[in-house]
Amino acid sequence: MALKRSSGYQAPAFPFTMLAHLVALAVIALVLVWLLHFREGLAFRSDDKAKIFNVHPLLMLLGFVLISGEAIMAYKTVPTIRKRQKLFHLLLHLIAFVAGVLGIYAVFKFHHDLRFPHMYSLHSWLGMSTISLFGLQWLFSFFSFWYPRAQASTRARLAPWHAVFGLAIFFMAILSAETGLVEKFIFLGLHRSQEALILNFTGLLVLVFAVSVGLTVLLPSA
Amino acid sequence: MALKRSSGYQAPAFPFTMLAHLVALAVIALVLVWLLHFREGLAFRSDDKAKIFNVHPLLMLLGFVLISGEAIMAYKTVPTIRKRQKLFHLLLHLIAFVAGVLGIYAVFKFHHDLRFPHMYSLHSWLGMSTISLFGLQWLFSFFSFWYPRAQASTRARLAPWHAVFGLAIFFMAILSAETGLVEKFIFLGLHRSQEALILNFTGLLVLVFAVSVGLTVLLPSA
Repeated sequence: MALKRSSGYQAPAFPFTMLAHLVALAVIALVLVWLLHFREGLAFRSDDKAKIFNVHPLLMLLGFVLISGEAIMAYKTVPTIRKRQKLFHLLLHLIAFVAGVLGIYAVFKFHHDLRFPHMYSLHSWLGMSTISLFGLQWLFSFFSFWYPRAQASTRARLAPWHAVFGLAIFFMAILSAETGLVEKFIFLGLHRSQEALILNFTGLLVLVFAVSVGLTVLLPSA
Repeated sequence: MALKRSSGYQAPAFPFTMLAHLVALAVIALVLVWLLHFREGLAFRSDDKAKIFNVHPLLMLLGFVLISGEAIMAYKTVPTIRKRQKLFHLLLHLIAFVAGVLGIYAVFKFHHDLRFPHMYSLHSWLGMSTISLFGLQWLFSFFSFWYPRAQASTRARLAPWHAVFGLAIFFMAILSAETGLVEKFIFLGLHRSQEALILNFTGLLVLVFAVSVGLTVLLPSA
């Protein structure tokens, strides 16, 4: 409803964009402290299977969620001509997608090595739906907006749908991240400890990041 | 960005509004089957403490989430003059808030009776932030838009912020619901069973409901 009248917004996007960047840095710090100090560290191959699991939250949070958020904001943050902003937007999304696929590979490898069942949790359903829709959206948008590109009138008609479905998929990525943090929290048997606080604050900051990205998209740029 | 050019949207809100209503009915059915058939049933006082817990997902999902979603859509769904739509909007949100507070009371009573610790999980942090912001948003908006009301120019300036913060709080409610479903799924030790599927499909349908509510708000009404 009100999203239509964004001329009504007085404040510019800038402070929320800055908040998003700062919160992203805080999430990077928390996740690294968590995985390297409190957990077992990182490896794609190891006898310590926990190290393989740890690649999953690393790539999903710092790769998929944070980079796709930065990709969404690229039109407001990269100070260049629109065509190059678009290139940043699509390349950052591609990097986020590759990180996401590798991160999902890591957790499948972990489950496979320990003979755990796959894909039974709501987290896995949400996550798999998210990465699939993300890939489809990327391909469809690449062909429509970059190469070979649809006609200008078609692109103008598609653009708002591209943005709204993109935001919905980003929303799903946040849901997947938060449900994953909650799962891991319980599997680790955490209650009240430093590590518990680190996981919960990571979850809160991911939420603040998501809302800041949303506001950056919504608000005018100056 | 694209949210500004919603004149670009060709399709009206109606099909998504209908989808939201239908999915809400499906969520009601799934949650009732889950709590009454697969679980222990419902009670505010009982020696079977699980019955007290069960009031929590009932009131949060069917009360807080679904009713606040319907409240958000009231301007598109209630066929009357704008002033009465506003009354529906604020009353439905009030009912959702009361359901939410009672639902949180139920889970605190459950934890208290069984001497479980309170408020250690990300789910509890997200949920408590959500209900607090929801209450603040309701109060502030009641005074600004209903009684005694701000001046027309102030209301026009506040309206888009009201909508965007309202959607952000609704987004937080969805995050709280999904993390809660994941927690309960693990505490019940579910893997692959009818009950596991019911919980996971409830989670997916809550997501579809949220996206439909979002699209209803965003798209033009005719």
